[in-house]
Amino acid sequence: MTSVSDLQAVLDYADTHMEDSLARLFELVRIPSVSTVPAHADDCRAAAQWLADQLSDLGFDASVRPTDGHPMVVGHQIDATCPHILFYGHYDVQPVDPLDLWETDPFEPTLQPQPDGDTHIVGRGASDDKGQLLTFIEACRAWKAVTGRLPIRVSMLFEGEEESGSQSLGLFLEKTAEELRADVMMVCDTDMWDRETPAITTMLRGLVGEEFTITCADRDLHSGMFGNAARNALQVASEALSSLRRSDGSVTLPGFYDGVEDLAPEIKAQWQRLPFDQGAFLSDIGLHIPAGETAYSIMEQVWARPSCEIHGVIGGYTEEGFKTVIPAKATSKVSFRLVAGQDPARIRDAFRAHIRSHVPEDCSVAFTSHGASPALSLPLDSPYLAATRNALSREWGRETALAGTGGSIPIVGEFKRKLGMDTLLVGFARFDNRIHSPNEKYDLSSFEGGIRSFVRVLAALSELEGNSAA
Amino acid sequence: MTSVSDLQAVLDYADTHMEDSLARLFELVRIPSVSTVPAHADDCRAAAQWLADQLSDLGFDASVRPTDGHPMVVGHQIDATCPHILFYGHYDVQPVDPLDLWETDPFEPTLQPQPDGDTHIVGRGASDDKGQLLTFIEACRAWKAVTGRLPIRVSMLFEGEEESGSQSLGLFLEKTAEELRADVMMVCDTDMWDRETPAITTMLRGLVGEEFTITCADRDLHSGMFGNAARNALQVASEALSSLRRSDGSVTLPGFYDGVEDLAPEIKAQWQRLPFDQGAFLSDIGLHIPAGETAYSIMEQVWARPSCEIHGVIGGYTEEGFKTVIPAKATSKVSFRLVAGQDPARIRDAFRAHIRSHVPEDCSVAFTSHGASPALSLPLDSPYLAATRNALSREWGRETALAGTGGSIPIVGEFKRKLGMDTLLVGFARFDNRIHSPNEKYDLSSFEGGIRSFVRVLAALSELEGNSAA
Repeated sequence: MTSVSDLQAVLDYADTHMEDSLARLFELVRIPSVSTVPAHADDCRAAAQWLADQLSDLGFDASVRPTDGHPMVVGHQIDATCPHILFYGHYDVQPVDPLDLWETDPFEPTLQPQPDGDTHIVGRGASDDKGQLLTFIEACRAWKAVTGRLPIRVSMLFEGEEESGSQSLGLFLEKTAEELRADVMMVCDTDMWDRETPAITTMLRGLVGEEFTITCADRDLHSGMFGNAARNALQVASEALSSLRRSDGSVTLPGFYDGVEDLAPEIKAQWQRLPFDQGAFLSDIGLHIPAGETAYSIMEQVWARPSCEIHGVIGGYTEEGFKTVIPAKATSKVSFRLVAGQDPARIRDAFRAHIRSHVPEDCSVAFTSHGASPALSLPLDSPYLAATRNALSREWGRETALAGTGGSIPIVGEFKRKLGMDTLLVGFARFDNRIHSPNEKYDLSSFEGGIRSFVRVLAALSELEGNSAA
Repeated sequence: MTSVSDLQAVLDYADTHMEDSLARLFELVRIPSVSTVPAHADDCRAAAQWLADQLSDLGFDASVRPTDGHPMVVGHQIDATCPHILFYGHYDVQPVDPLDLWETDPFEPTLQPQPDGDTHIVGRGASDDKGQLLTFIEACRAWKAVTGRLPIRVSMLFEGEEESGSQSLGLFLEKTAEELRADVMMVCDTDMWDRETPAITTMLRGLVGEEFTITCADRDLHSGMFGNAARNALQVASEALSSLRRSDGSVTLPGFYDGVEDLAPEIKAQWQRLPFDQGAFLSDIGLHIPAGETAYSIMEQVWARPSCEIHGVIGGYTEEGFKTVIPAKATSKVSFRLVAGQDPARIRDAFRAHIRSHVPEDCSVAFTSHGASPALSLPLDSPYLAATRNALSREWGRETALAGTGGSIPIVGEFKRKLGMDTLLVGFARFDNRIHSPNEKYDLSSFEGGIRSFVRVLAALSELEGNSAA
């Protein structure tokens, strides 16, 4: 339980100490913790140590935990009463190439004032995820500084391999399941709805990724000598791929929509209230005609409907010029985004059966799986969701959007499977942050508003009863 | 007019001097005249000079003619009475890479005895086209040696850019049209029907080559954020490509079969007499189910029916692993083989209209032409055809096949357009000669039988009245 006057004092502290918070973000961005580049292994360790030191300074029982890859950082401060949250972030960043497209040194952060009055914090990881994770740490710092304690039980977990496949995470979660289990996960690695509207991402689509190679003749053939008569692998592939969707955009696989339910009326109503410009969504990418299922709005299609996309096709002669070859092989990559109710294994089976049905008896097809994960959705009746949502709405003066995300966030599935915990995805990034690209930036308003938001979220959660035994 | 005893004496001379002929083939194969590799330009000149010297030795008025590319060789010996033939061959060869797949030095020819009693002459160009063109020169040599003259008027033209696009040929033919015009062209660059059956190729399919790139969004998109809603260039391409053929294998373009006539009964009957094993044709390439038009035999499909083949498709992410991208672009290469009666320009227009009809209004498509040539067919009532056919049948003791070829031979169209001449394609290569590939070979029986065949062809043609003013 926290008092209204405590909350205001903590918010004031956060505001008046914003320069110090920013200085710490600069320190962290300066550590080039690129996880996928072996030469940066020491930098990854340094970033982990920096975080552990910050947590220790704030009174956390914090340590750097080695793994077979880059280390984890774990910290606990559980002297408050329930509830107990586990905050997750990642200290590793994407590579910076192509370096020549950066206007400033990616590891020497700069402040760049913008015409709209906001300021960009420019540097690799400024947004993803160093800026985002620090909003939570700095919110904890403000609470500690003003009240001497955190209003709820907080554990934190920072990973150093999120950008390179999270190879160590699964085993680590299994080993530390008891230590890490809390009432709910909190992750700060997502976007706001728009510049003014906060968002909690509650629906995550799943994914079935498939690659297949069709082989017809035992070698490429000359079309003059064999054309018409010899099966063309690209013709077979084109027929198999084009028949994955009907003309109304729906996916043809038998049973594909089994278990798919209409959007909850509450979510649908809320989405209709949200500012979303379907025209701008398309014109931003150079298009103006919605593709996909004609019966659904773009927002529903992207967040709440399963999809099927062809990601790559290669076969035959693809260099400059022309070669009249009948390709013996054609390789395609396809994925399905799944929503709640769809079984990844059944979708995979149906897909493979569909492709096989298009491959003539004297040709063959080989499949490679590129992962299968079910969709996840946060229960809409979660008290943690309601409290967090209210806190965000108060800070931003707008109804908090309950958003879906078309993308998959594998760690959320990991935490659900390994620790049985639901995740609140609360982020302050903006759509234009250029994460993974040159000149990545985080808006100063994201950083400030993020810290203030988490100050309020901690207060709001302290009003709840926790379920945790911890 | 030649006497039967002359003919027998010339054949005997050819037989008894076969080792000398073979030695000359070895000399020519040793010159690495790879036309597409600039470092071999001197070798191409050397091969041209070698041929000019051979022709001069045989009493031809021969010279090496410079072009903007590799030189031409032209020779005339027109002291006989009519008729007058122009023999064409090419002295350039394909590159030899991958060199490590050659079992012997490609430019040091070897004789490799085979279990069936034949012998392989192994080396780059041994078949294509050095071995083949020498069969004609050596036949002329035998006539000169025995009778002191050639039985008909003979001009020869050797090109050095056939394997690299024949860039200089068109202009050269225009400039030398008067000099080169004869009653009929003779080209030795094709296959026999099978090991025992000689063939004259009388039907050449035409070709329309097209490349197109479909562009949807202005950049590749993340399928999680835009999947379903943003148009996928590979989906559009798959639909456009798969709809080029019906399930019965026929091509869907409106008007595609306009002007296409059924095979002449004489040809159809002859083809039915020819040994052709449809099962073996397919099993040789690892297949057993005929593709293409279900209403036609494989032989008709490959030689006498127009075709449509997809030669290459590339789009999206095609490297190892997986990337859930919605490709903005997809590029495809397609060609149509044409038969007599089809207009390449109309086929091209129909194709482009078909593709455009599949491209949504907010996407675009750009086309690149890769050539357009009509089909050619030698008039079946040509006296040169009849005489040559009879000569070949006598030499091989089998009815000479009048074959089609699914491939295009661009020079034949050039000679028809620029010089108004029909072409007799008489070749002794075998299907398994590995032309353009490592370990290219020419059968000794092809070389010997080819020389003897042309000895007979020269005699047979001398029985005809020529039409030439030359």
